[in-house]
Amino acid sequence: MEKLIDKIKGREELMKLNTEQLYTLAEEIREHIIDCTAECGGHLASSLGAVEMTIALHRVLRLPNDKIVWDVGHQSYAHKILTGRKDQLKTLRKLGGECGFCDPEASGYDSYISGHTSTSLSLALGAVCARDTLGEKYTVAAVIGDGALSGGLANEALNNIGQEQRRMLMILNDNEMSISENVGAMSNYLTRARTSAGYVKSKRGIDSALEKLPRYGDAIARFMRNAKEHVKYLVSPGVIFEELGITYLGPIDGHDIRAMEEVFRRAVKLDEPVIVHVVTKKGKGYSFAEKEPKKYHGVGPFDKNEGVTQSGAETYSSVFGDEISRIARENSRVAVITPAMMIGSGLEGYAKEFPDRFYDVGIAEGHAVTFAAGLAGSGMVPVVSLYSTFAQRAYDSIVHDVALSNLHVVFAIDRAGLVPGDGKTHQGIFDISFFSSVPNVKILSPCSFEELRKMLCYAVEECEGPVVVRYPRGANQFVNKELGDFVLSKADVVKKGDKVTILAEGVAMPSAAGAGELLEGKGITCEVINARTIQPVDIGTISESVKKTGRLVCVEQSMRRGGMGENVCGLLAQRGVECEFLSVALDEFVTHGGYDEIEKKYAFDSESIAERIEKEWFDGEEKA
Amino acid sequence: MEKLIDKIKGREELMKLNTEQLYTLAEEIREHIIDCTAECGGHLASSLGAVEMTIALHRVLRLPNDKIVWDVGHQSYAHKILTGRKDQLKTLRKLGGECGFCDPEASGYDSYISGHTSTSLSLALGAVCARDTLGEKYTVAAVIGDGALSGGLANEALNNIGQEQRRMLMILNDNEMSISENVGAMSNYLTRARTSAGYVKSKRGIDSALEKLPRYGDAIARFMRNAKEHVKYLVSPGVIFEELGITYLGPIDGHDIRAMEEVFRRAVKLDEPVIVHVVTKKGKGYSFAEKEPKKYHGVGPFDKNEGVTQSGAETYSSVFGDEISRIARENSRVAVITPAMMIGSGLEGYAKEFPDRFYDVGIAEGHAVTFAAGLAGSGMVPVVSLYSTFAQRAYDSIVHDVALSNLHVVFAIDRAGLVPGDGKTHQGIFDISFFSSVPNVKILSPCSFEELRKMLCYAVEECEGPVVVRYPRGANQFVNKELGDFVLSKADVVKKGDKVTILAEGVAMPSAAGAGELLEGKGITCEVINARTIQPVDIGTISESVKKTGRLVCVEQSMRRGGMGENVCGLLAQRGVECEFLSVALDEFVTHGGYDEIEKKYAFDSESIAERIEKEWFDGEEKA
Repeated sequence: MEKLIDKIKGREELMKLNTEQLYTLAEEIREHIIDCTAECGGHLASSLGAVEMTIALHRVLRLPNDKIVWDVGHQSYAHKILTGRKDQLKTLRKLGGECGFCDPEASGYDSYISGHTSTSLSLALGAVCARDTLGEKYTVAAVIGDGALSGGLANEALNNIGQEQRRMLMILNDNEMSISENVGAMSNYLTRARTSAGYVKSKRGIDSALEKLPRYGDAIARFMRNAKEHVKYLVSPGVIFEELGITYLGPIDGHDIRAMEEVFRRAVKLDEPVIVHVVTKKGKGYSFAEKEPKKYHGVGPFDKNEGVTQSGAETYSSVFGDEISRIARENSRVAVITPAMMIGSGLEGYAKEFPDRFYDVGIAEGHAVTFAAGLAGSGMVPVVSLYSTFAQRAYDSIVHDVALSNLHVVFAIDRAGLVPGDGKTHQGIFDISFFSSVPNVKILSPCSFEELRKMLCYAVEECEGPVVVRYPRGANQFVNKELGDFVLSKADVVKKGDKVTILAEGVAMPSAAGAGELLEGKGITCEVINARTIQPVDIGTISESVKKTGRLVCVEQSMRRGGMGENVCGLLAQRGVECEFLSVALDEFVTHGGYDEIEKKYAFDSESIAERIEKEWFDGEEKA
Repeated sequence: MEKLIDKIKGREELMKLNTEQLYTLAEEIREHIIDCTAECGGHLASSLGAVEMTIALHRVLRLPNDKIVWDVGHQSYAHKILTGRKDQLKTLRKLGGECGFCDPEASGYDSYISGHTSTSLSLALGAVCARDTLGEKYTVAAVIGDGALSGGLANEALNNIGQEQRRMLMILNDNEMSISENVGAMSNYLTRARTSAGYVKSKRGIDSALEKLPRYGDAIARFMRNAKEHVKYLVSPGVIFEELGITYLGPIDGHDIRAMEEVFRRAVKLDEPVIVHVVTKKGKGYSFAEKEPKKYHGVGPFDKNEGVTQSGAETYSSVFGDEISRIARENSRVAVITPAMMIGSGLEGYAKEFPDRFYDVGIAEGHAVTFAAGLAGSGMVPVVSLYSTFAQRAYDSIVHDVALSNLHVVFAIDRAGLVPGDGKTHQGIFDISFFSSVPNVKILSPCSFEELRKMLCYAVEECEGPVVVRYPRGANQFVNKELGDFVLSKADVVKKGDKVTILAEGVAMPSAAGAGELLEGKGITCEVINARTIQPVDIGTISESVKKTGRLVCVEQSMRRGGMGENVCGLLAQRGVECEFLSVALDEFVTHGGYDEIEKKYAFDSESIAERIEKEWFDGEEKA
């Protein structure tokens, strides 16, 4: 029998289904999501939780005229399936395949790009204001997770939405988690809202507070009607939203399609901003994921019947976690801060061992850094653990709160350089540029686990002022058996040569050294330098090498503009050292794909680097 | 008779004063603040409003063991006077004089740097956590304005403070304004709080909600006691804070020293986070400032008896305001967004003429940009008006929400380059670096009003994708009478020469051209190039010039790292064009002082540039 999921080409078919069929469809969608993520990896648990809500939304709204703005977008797999991308989902996160988030370039049904959290409310308000100015009539619905509400951007948007008072639907998809358990006062508040007297599992969620009053008895009701301004709090669990001028409906069961449909239908008719609080279960419908939603937030390929098995192999993240724990044992002033990325950053062990010196501040990168400045200014040595792509969100806190006062804050920047899978919203390719421009900031980059350990020790115990250690996802190493102690601004010449100087930051060292080997085989001897310190760079060592070779290649998994290569070119020109230059860096955003795929596509692999060098300088020339 | 203000050396003397004397002291402090700002310019109105609150705080806390964390810091003049800086305040904002904000480098009584808004809660929580970890006992008080609560960073902090539940005092200094009137839902909420039944002008502000219950009659009170969870809203105007787990006291009269003292004294004894809502009058005690607090937020020197008189002279800001209004008259898709900087950005006229296409989103730079992305993705052409230093706060919104989708958003970046007065927290010196590293972003920089007009037209009407126009505070121009139409990536050779190529971005053009003149007088003929487009730079024109001169000087009022000069060096080296290079740019933060003072100190004036060039390349050499 043909499956329902195969019949659904759009809203028209969706509207013909009866309630039982809708739930059958939900199950089929779930099955497909599990199959695709088992095959390709992806964001499983969030997308499973949002299936019924997505069906209800797609029945109420008329896409693409109406718009759904998905926060983060990793909850949008059902949306992809319902908008003609069912088969495409089988290529999830692969080069040229379906991206893991939302992207208007990929589908006319995706209204805005999404990848970082807490952006949907601002984007949706923009769409709503544009609609009203241009005299259009469509509906805009933002879907935002409870975890994303801790982000400052979402709060700035709520403040403006309450002011603007325009017709706009917000769906709070409350699965009680970010990637890990939510932390923070907003999360505690939502927990109370979920469990309050006002919790209704069905359409009663749309009854207004005043309609419910008689339940409390006549005399009191009369008093309350007079004290209108205060009364609403007696029954509304959504007081924070109501106080901000946003109508709150709910909480309602996020797996009851009909109840949601009714609420959404009424909500979009209100000429004001409305937030519908929908309670869902992360990982819903896949027992492994329901039991361990954290583990199933983002996964690599796995066996559907056995679930995800963890390898336990060492990665830069786990080495960071182990080493910072070791350091913290000896130094009681060390504290570690994460904005809701404990597991991905390798900090589970640390958090267990040092609960009093571990701060998960919620999805709040700016606060994580300014809070660290507060710690540093009062005697602690804070280590802020951030993914490179999320460190972008704390730029002004880095400049204004940390660097200006030259406070000793250690930035452990994970996922630096090319990041597989997640795609263009999650690449770690800006950190060298934006950290480099800030006075007082030192940037180190290890090319091996051993070097990461040495650099962390230096950063925590010896360094003054702000210091960044950037390292990649995974375990790609260049192991130098004669690795010396780490000394700031002292580069490591790992191979001597006289035709070309290849300078690389740590993340790019394995492929840069590989390119050196390949060229050596062709008689082009390269001097390979591991920069170790990106800022301030060891211009002395580099300069000596370039004087010999006359040719400089700088390999960095980062943007060319503002990168180490440009810095070195400028410094060499100021010193009057002349050389020909080749930049192996980025001038564009980086798409999704496996690591090897994108490394090759953007010419960061050894073969591509060697080819470029050969073509640039040794084409047709006698090599030896 | 000796004044009280002259006797106060610290807390000891302050504690000896009786109530009458305290108010006399307050008047003397006010007088001194008015005198100093009349002489030097400064942030008058906010500091006048905070005098009594500051006195009360300094009586309750024991500085510098206890800490006050001032948000923004422009409300801290009374704090400076009470901590031994009365005479120093006469040198306010001058080179080597007292800085206009707070800075631990300047005084042991300033606990953290402050200049940008909304940072104090994060910093204070950091101090509190450090205190608890290190087993210390001091008190930490953050003083935050109501306007600053719209900033996302403050909301991220509140979320974490409610979670941490540590002993911490927050004072909400509610003067009902940011620089202009506050906007946003939080502001509306605070207005209701101020005017609610719970508003008490004196020590009653510390009575708990439950103590007040009997007023409502016995039967109801009994009911309410049972419904504890909901009851508090009946009388507490601070429900949003209470819901976040923060004890709310107030609102109380922020000019009643004794009342505040009593509340603060009780508040610091509570072993939990407490926010005291203090209502003050911006500009209090200076009739001009009380009447027009916006005008007296930040002022230049003025006549104390006549008040501030506005010159009405054209500036880059006013030219921007006029030109964008002209453009908006012809293009109904244009909308302008400001994060609470309407007046400083020259947008008063625009806001009046186009209220439906003007969005003051509150102090919320990230939201301003992501909201603009929302507008751009739905058919509008948004122009985000930002001071350069505040644009830093929106970096990830620029990367993730605008540039990734190549949305047509115009960034009008005011106060780019050196900014007089405000000092190191407010310099516009990072924008070239952080915008340059982002793919799809174009950066233009005008050297005259006429060029600003042309660039704005281009940016709004012709450009695709994100585009930045950066211009300085004030009116410093290089007027090229033969200025041609603006063409992207086409530089303007304003003077021919063959010894040195001087390349400058617009803000630095007047002094760069001046340096060219000075050198010409010594027989060193310079080719002066107005870059016009910083990114993507006109490497062709520059390359041709450098081939002729062999020497390149790049002048940019911005950081060297990531700047235009480095970019050009890298591109020239990649093309095999050899040259000697001199960077006139920044490698450090820039302190406060008059424009001419800091221009000279950081060697951006014509004389310094000419001297450097001469010394570098023509020292002792035959010039002609």
